[in-house]
Amino acid sequence: MLKRKVVLPPEHLFPPDQWRLVEGRYSDEYVDRAETAFSLGNGYVGVRGSLEEGRPALSPGTFVNGFHEIWPIMHPEEANGLARNGQTIVSVPDATIIKLYVDDEPLFLATARIRDYERVLDMQAGTLIREFVWSTAAGKHVRVRSCRLVSLEHRHVVAMTYEATLLDHPAPIAISSLVLNRQDAHPPNHTPEWHPRDPRLATVLPDRVLNARVTDLAGQRILLGYQTTNSKMTLGVGVDHMIDTVCPYQAEGSVSQDTGEVVITAMAEPGAPIRITKYAAYQTSRSVGVPELIDRCRRTLDRTVRDGFQVLLTSQREHLDRFWDHADVRVQSRHNPVRHQQAIRWNLFQVAQASWRAEGSGIPAKGLTGQAYEGHYFWDTEIYVLPFLSYTQPRIARNLLRFRHSMLGRARERARDLSQRGALFPWRTINGEEASASVQAGTAQYHINADIAYAIRRYVNVRGDVGILGEIGAEILVETARLWEDLGFYGEDGRFHIHGVTGPDEYTTVVNDNTYTNLMARLNLIFAAATVRRLREERPQDYIALVHQVALRPDEAESWERAAAAMHVPFDEERGIHPQDGTFLDREEWDLDSTPPEKFPLLLHYHPLVIYRHQVLKQSDIVLAMFLLGNEFSHEQKRRNFEYYDRLTTGDSSLSACVQSIIAAEIGMEHQALEYFDYALLMDLGNVAGNASDGVHIASAAGVWSSLVFGFGGVRDFSGRLSFVPCLPCQWDGLAFSLRFCDRQIRVRLTHEEELYLVDEGEPLEVTIRGEPQVLSPGEAFSCKPPPG
Amino acid sequence: MLKRKVVLPPEHLFPPDQWRLVEGRYSDEYVDRAETAFSLGNGYVGVRGSLEEGRPALSPGTFVNGFHEIWPIMHPEEANGLARNGQTIVSVPDATIIKLYVDDEPLFLATARIRDYERVLDMQAGTLIREFVWSTAAGKHVRVRSCRLVSLEHRHVVAMTYEATLLDHPAPIAISSLVLNRQDAHPPNHTPEWHPRDPRLATVLPDRVLNARVTDLAGQRILLGYQTTNSKMTLGVGVDHMIDTVCPYQAEGSVSQDTGEVVITAMAEPGAPIRITKYAAYQTSRSVGVPELIDRCRRTLDRTVRDGFQVLLTSQREHLDRFWDHADVRVQSRHNPVRHQQAIRWNLFQVAQASWRAEGSGIPAKGLTGQAYEGHYFWDTEIYVLPFLSYTQPRIARNLLRFRHSMLGRARERARDLSQRGALFPWRTINGEEASASVQAGTAQYHINADIAYAIRRYVNVRGDVGILGEIGAEILVETARLWEDLGFYGEDGRFHIHGVTGPDEYTTVVNDNTYTNLMARLNLIFAAATVRRLREERPQDYIALVHQVALRPDEAESWERAAAAMHVPFDEERGIHPQDGTFLDREEWDLDSTPPEKFPLLLHYHPLVIYRHQVLKQSDIVLAMFLLGNEFSHEQKRRNFEYYDRLTTGDSSLSACVQSIIAAEIGMEHQALEYFDYALLMDLGNVAGNASDGVHIASAAGVWSSLVFGFGGVRDFSGRLSFVPCLPCQWDGLAFSLRFCDRQIRVRLTHEEELYLVDEGEPLEVTIRGEPQVLSPGEAFSCKPPPG
Repeated sequence: MLKRKVVLPPEHLFPPDQWRLVEGRYSDEYVDRAETAFSLGNGYVGVRGSLEEGRPALSPGTFVNGFHEIWPIMHPEEANGLARNGQTIVSVPDATIIKLYVDDEPLFLATARIRDYERVLDMQAGTLIREFVWSTAAGKHVRVRSCRLVSLEHRHVVAMTYEATLLDHPAPIAISSLVLNRQDAHPPNHTPEWHPRDPRLATVLPDRVLNARVTDLAGQRILLGYQTTNSKMTLGVGVDHMIDTVCPYQAEGSVSQDTGEVVITAMAEPGAPIRITKYAAYQTSRSVGVPELIDRCRRTLDRTVRDGFQVLLTSQREHLDRFWDHADVRVQSRHNPVRHQQAIRWNLFQVAQASWRAEGSGIPAKGLTGQAYEGHYFWDTEIYVLPFLSYTQPRIARNLLRFRHSMLGRARERARDLSQRGALFPWRTINGEEASASVQAGTAQYHINADIAYAIRRYVNVRGDVGILGEIGAEILVETARLWEDLGFYGEDGRFHIHGVTGPDEYTTVVNDNTYTNLMARLNLIFAAATVRRLREERPQDYIALVHQVALRPDEAESWERAAAAMHVPFDEERGIHPQDGTFLDREEWDLDSTPPEKFPLLLHYHPLVIYRHQVLKQSDIVLAMFLLGNEFSHEQKRRNFEYYDRLTTGDSSLSACVQSIIAAEIGMEHQALEYFDYALLMDLGNVAGNASDGVHIASAAGVWSSLVFGFGGVRDFSGRLSFVPCLPCQWDGLAFSLRFCDRQIRVRLTHEEELYLVDEGEPLEVTIRGEPQVLSPGEAFSCKPPPG
Repeated sequence: MLKRKVVLPPEHLFPPDQWRLVEGRYSDEYVDRAETAFSLGNGYVGVRGSLEEGRPALSPGTFVNGFHEIWPIMHPEEANGLARNGQTIVSVPDATIIKLYVDDEPLFLATARIRDYERVLDMQAGTLIREFVWSTAAGKHVRVRSCRLVSLEHRHVVAMTYEATLLDHPAPIAISSLVLNRQDAHPPNHTPEWHPRDPRLATVLPDRVLNARVTDLAGQRILLGYQTTNSKMTLGVGVDHMIDTVCPYQAEGSVSQDTGEVVITAMAEPGAPIRITKYAAYQTSRSVGVPELIDRCRRTLDRTVRDGFQVLLTSQREHLDRFWDHADVRVQSRHNPVRHQQAIRWNLFQVAQASWRAEGSGIPAKGLTGQAYEGHYFWDTEIYVLPFLSYTQPRIARNLLRFRHSMLGRARERARDLSQRGALFPWRTINGEEASASVQAGTAQYHINADIAYAIRRYVNVRGDVGILGEIGAEILVETARLWEDLGFYGEDGRFHIHGVTGPDEYTTVVNDNTYTNLMARLNLIFAAATVRRLREERPQDYIALVHQVALRPDEAESWERAAAAMHVPFDEERGIHPQDGTFLDREEWDLDSTPPEKFPLLLHYHPLVIYRHQVLKQSDIVLAMFLLGNEFSHEQKRRNFEYYDRLTTGDSSLSACVQSIIAAEIGMEHQALEYFDYALLMDLGNVAGNASDGVHIASAAGVWSSLVFGFGGVRDFSGRLSFVPCLPCQWDGLAFSLRFCDRQIRVRLTHEEELYLVDEGEPLEVTIRGEPQVLSPGEAFSCKPPPG
C-alpha cells in the first residue's frame, strides 16, 4: 500500500520525447528538480544540471566519486565500537559557470525575457543542450546556445560549448567563464529537511575542506590544486578555453585560491557568433601529490584541446550506442507511450551515468547527482544496481565487485570491532570504514554481507564463469560465511539462530531471526562452501592460493553447511506466511488506513520507538526475499506473504516500489504491479519521495529495469539457468529487452500475440520458457504464443 | 555474579572510625577519590572535597542543585522526537580556595613537609576539618587548621574557617582567599574515560556558560552575579571574610568577572593564630534577575556574619542529630566492625547531604558531588533513594514527590511527542525535558512512569495517609496509567502486551513484554484505579478537583483495571522462572566465566549489539521486581529466578548489588547477601565501579540502607502493613535500625539471641513478625527469640 503522490511536471513545460528529456520553458518552480534531472555524469565525475549562469540554483555541485572529507562523528551517548569517522563526498570546484553580459546587462533567466527556450538532455548523444533567444531590456535579441557533456570516453573530462549570437543589433558582449570553489562541502545530509539544518553541524567539518595548493594561470588555462583538511585527499582541476569568433575580442584570465576566471569581451556584430569551448579536467587521489595531479590535468587538457569538442561528441555517442544496445527496454504502452518510454530511458541513463566509469569506486546512493547520503556506498549497489549491470554491462559489474573486495581488509577489522570472526562489510562507506552513526538502522544491517555474496553468485551465474571467484569472490565468501557462522548460534531447539540484527526494513530494528537475513545468510554459507569445493576441484591453483589467503581450515566448509542446514526460517503455519522476524507477528499492527497522507514518510513524523513497536514497513524484507530467492518460496507462500506485507508497507523507502512490482507481477496482481512500477519509474521525475531535488535515487532507477525484465519479463536465473515466465500487462502492447547471459546476447520481444526469443551469437543456449526447456540457437528466433490471459 | 574488585585505601592512610571518615596522611594517590569522599552538601549546594589550596586537585567543583546550562544535542542521525536539548549542571564559582604563603613560600601539599596531618569528615558534626603542621623550607613550623561546612540550616550558606599559627619563628604570612569561576562547566560526562574526551564536545556548550552581570567589592565582601548563556538562569555568589588575629595585618580585596580575592598579609608572631572565617552565599533562579539574587546574598551574608560560625556549627549538629536518630543503622560485625560501621554511616550521610535541603529539585545521580551524569535526575530517586527517605525523613520524600509532580506538564508533552496519551516522564532530566540522547538505553525506559507511581504508593503506605494523593499523587497516577493503557495493546491471545521498551537492565534494550515493566505497569494501573475510587469515596473534594484537572472519564478506572487484569507476564513453566522479556530465554548466553576481568564493565569493551543479543545483564530486572513486588512471587520462583539471573548479572550497574543482596538474604543465600552488601557498601569507598573520583553513587548509598533494613532486617510493607522476617547473618552479632511508619517511630534491635521491636509513641501498631500478627504498644518492647539458624 503506497500513499505517495506522483507529481509530474506539466507537459507544456516538459514535453514527452522518446530519447530526450526536454524542458520546453524555463520555470522558477522546477529549478530544483531540474538540477537533478539534467545532471550529467560518467561514474567518475558528475555535474548537477544547474544553469550555465550559476543561478537561479538550488545546490549546484560537481562531484568526483570517492573524493571525500572525513570528520569525527559525535555520538551524544558514547558506546564501544560506534563508527568514529564520518565521510562526506566533497563538492569540488564547479567548472560549468559561464555568465553572459550584453550591454553590461547580465543574463538572469528568472527575470529575462526569453523565447524559443529549450533545454534537452539527449540520452543518445550524452549531452545537455540549451538554446533560447534573449530579448534584452535594450531591445536587442541574442541567441544563446550551449552544450555540456561529461565524457564517457575520457573519464576526467567535462566539456562544454557556449555560443552567443546577436540577432539584430550590435552590442558589446562580455562572457565570464568561471571555475568556482564554493567551499560548500556541507556535511551530512543526515539533517533531514523537516529539521532546520543545524548550523553546528558545520563545525563538524573543518572550516575549510579544500586547501589551495596550486593556483596557476597560463593564458586561458586555469589550474587549481587542493588538498582536503582531514582526509588529506588531493584534487587537481584544470580548465582551458578555446574562443572562436570573427568579432574582435579580448580575453583576460585571473586566478585566486577559490576562483579561476577568464573574461572574454567582444564587440559583437549581428549574425556573428561568439563561441567558447571550455574543457575541464578533474584528477583526485588518496596518495599522489597535488603537483602530479596538476600535471595530469595539463596533459589531459592538451590532448582534449588538440582533439576538439567534436571528437568528444562522437565518442560519447559510440559509448551510448553500446549502452543502449544492451540496456534499452522498449515498452509499448497504450497510455502515454512516449512519456513512459522517456521515463524508462531516463532511469536507465541515470544508472549508466552513475556507473559507466566508476572504476575503483562504488556507486553512491545518489550517483554523482547530489551530496545526499554523503556520497556513500550501500547495499543498493549489490541488490539493486548489479542485477541490471550484470545482465547488460558485465565489465562494470565486475569492477564493482572488485571494488568491494578492495574493502575486505577494513571489513575484517570491523568484524573484530564487533567481536566476530570473518569480515563484516560496513553499512555505509566511502573509504571502507563503517560511516553509519546509527546502530539500529545502520551497523545492525549485517545482511549487507549476504547481499554481497548474493551479487557475486548472480554475477557468476550470469557470466557462466568462475574466474571472478578465484580472483576475489572466494575470499569474500569465506570471510562473510565465517561471520555468519560466528554470529549465529545453535539454540536449544537445535536450529541455527541469528539474533540482534536489522533486516532491510528499517522500520523494525534489532530483531532476532530476521527472515531475510537468515535466508540470505544461508545462501551465503551454502555458496561459500560450494565455492570452496568447486575451486578445489576445478581450479586447484586458485584453491591453494585461497587456503593461504584466508587460512582456510579443512572442516570449515562442512561447518558452514551444517549451520545452513540448521538455519531457522520463521514460518507461521496458521497464516501460511513468513513472519518478518521471530516476533514480528506479535506486534500491534499500524493502522495505515487511518494515517493521514501528510504523516508520510513515518520516520519524519513519529519517534522511532513508536514505529519500531508496530507492524509497519518501510520496505518489505519478505517481498524482497521472494524476488531474490524466489525458488525457496511456493507460489501460495508468495501470494500470502505479498498480501500480508503489502498492506503494511508504506514504501517510505525508495527501494520498495520496484520490488513490490516484480512480485505483484509474478503472482498475477497486474494492477498493483503496474502501480508500483509507476512509482519506481517516476520516483524522481514525478518526485514520488518528495526529495527529487536532492539527487537521483539510483537504486530505484536500476530497479526500473528489474521491474521490467524480472517483473513483466518474468526472467529468473536461479541455479544458473535462465528462465522466462513473461506477464505482459493488458495495458501494454509490447515489451522488448536484451540480456547478456553466458557470453550470449539474448533479445526478447513480447506482445500479446507472440513471444520472440533470440540469441545473437555463440553456442546454442538452453533456457526454460514458461516451465518448458528450450534451446535457443543463434540467429533463429524462438517464437511462441503466450497463453490466453 | 560480580567480578569487580574492591580497592579499599589502606588503613594507615584512612583509619577506621565509627563516626568520622579520616584521612590520616596526605597521599597523592588518593587525591581524586578523596575529593569525592570528603564532599560536603545539603541538597541545595555541594562542594567537592578539594584541598583548601586548590591543588593538587582532580576536578574541584561547587554545584547548585538544578542550576544548569542547556545545549543542543547533536544526533549524528536525526529522527523524529529525539531529545533536543542537553542539560548540564554547571560548576559554579568555587569559594573554598584559601592559599597560604609563609615567607612568600606557597603551601603545596604534594611537596610540602607535613606532620600530624589529619583530615576528617565528621558525620555527626557535619564538618570537614583539616589540621597539620607544615615545616617550611626555611625551617619554620606552621600549624594549619581549617574547618568547612555546608549549612543544613541555611541552605544557601557555605562557611569555613582557616587558621595559621606559627609555632617557633615569626614570619610574614599571606593568606589569599579566592572565589573562582573556572568556566569549566565541561559537558557531558557521556564521554567515558576510555575514549579520550572529545575536544569538539566543548563547542557544544557555549564558549562561556557564566556571563558576569555583577562584579562588586565592598571591603572584604565580594559579590558576583552571572547569567548562563542558553538557559538564562541566574546566579548570585557572595563571599565575606572575618579576620581575627592579634598580629598586625592588612587586607586587600579585588574582583574581576571570574575572580574575587581578599589577600590578608600579616607579620605573624609565634603562638598568635591568624584566623579567617569565610562565608559564602549562593542564590540561583530561573526567573529572578541577578541584582535581586545579589541582594539576597547580601542579606544572607549580613545575617550569617552577625550570627557567627559557632551558630552554624550548633545548628549543623542539631540537624544531624535528628537525621541520625531516624536514619542510623548499627551493625555489630565480627570482622572489621568499626570500618563496617564507618562505611554504613558514610553512605547514609551522603544521602542526607544529597537530599536534606533539596527543596524544589530532585536528587542528581551523583548528588552534588560531581558533574557526572550531568547532574540529572533519574529513576534512582524513586526506586533507590525514596524508600530510605520515606522511612526516615518523610518531609524530604514528600518534597521529592512534589518536585516530580512539578514536571508533569512536560511529561504530558513528552507523551505527545511519542504519540501517546497521558504523561511520560523523561528518563533523565533537570528541567523536566527529556535529556537522554539515547533511545535504547534512555527514552525507551518507559518504566520510569511506573517507578514514580510505585514511590507514591510506598509513600502513602508508609505515611498511612492519603493527603499526598489529593495534593499531587492522583494526577500523576491518572496520567501515567493513561500512558500504559495507550502504549500497550490486547494481542490475539487476549492478553495485554507492552512492546518496544527497555527495562532497568540496559544490556537488553527495546524488547517486547519486559517483565519488570509489565509488572510495574500493572501496579501503576491498579493503583491509579484504586486511588480514583478511594478519593471519590474518602475525599470527594479532591476527587472533583481531580476530575477537572485531568478530564477524567467515568469509565477510565475500569479500563485500567481491565488492562491490568489482562497484563501479560512472561513465565517459563519448564524452568519455573520469569523470562526478563518475551524472548529473553531464546538468546545466546554470554559466557561470563570466560570473560576476563579487564573486560568489565562490558559496555566499555563490546559493541552494544554484541551485548544486546546475549543473555547478560547490567542489573537484573527480575531480581529488582522480586524486591519491589515481592508479594507477587512465590518463594520457589524467587529462588529459581535469583539463581538463573544471578549468574548472568555483571553488576556493571552500581544499582545492582544492593538489590541482589536483599533478595539473596530473603531466600537464605547469606553468603551472597553479604558479598553483594559489601559491594554496595564499598561502591565508592572501595572504588568498586572504578569511578569513585567522579562522585558518589547516591542510589547505591541509599541502597545500603535498603540492604540492611529490607535485606537483613527483612522489612516489607506490601499492602500497607509492616512485616518483619529478619535474617541476621552469622558473621554479625547485632543489627539495629529505626523506621518511621504511620507516624510512629519504630526501633528494631536484632541479635542472634533476641529480637526487640519497640514503638516510641502514638497508638499501638499492628505488624507482622515472621508471619505472626503482633501489636506493638508504645513504650513496651516486643521481644522474641529468632528461630534457630
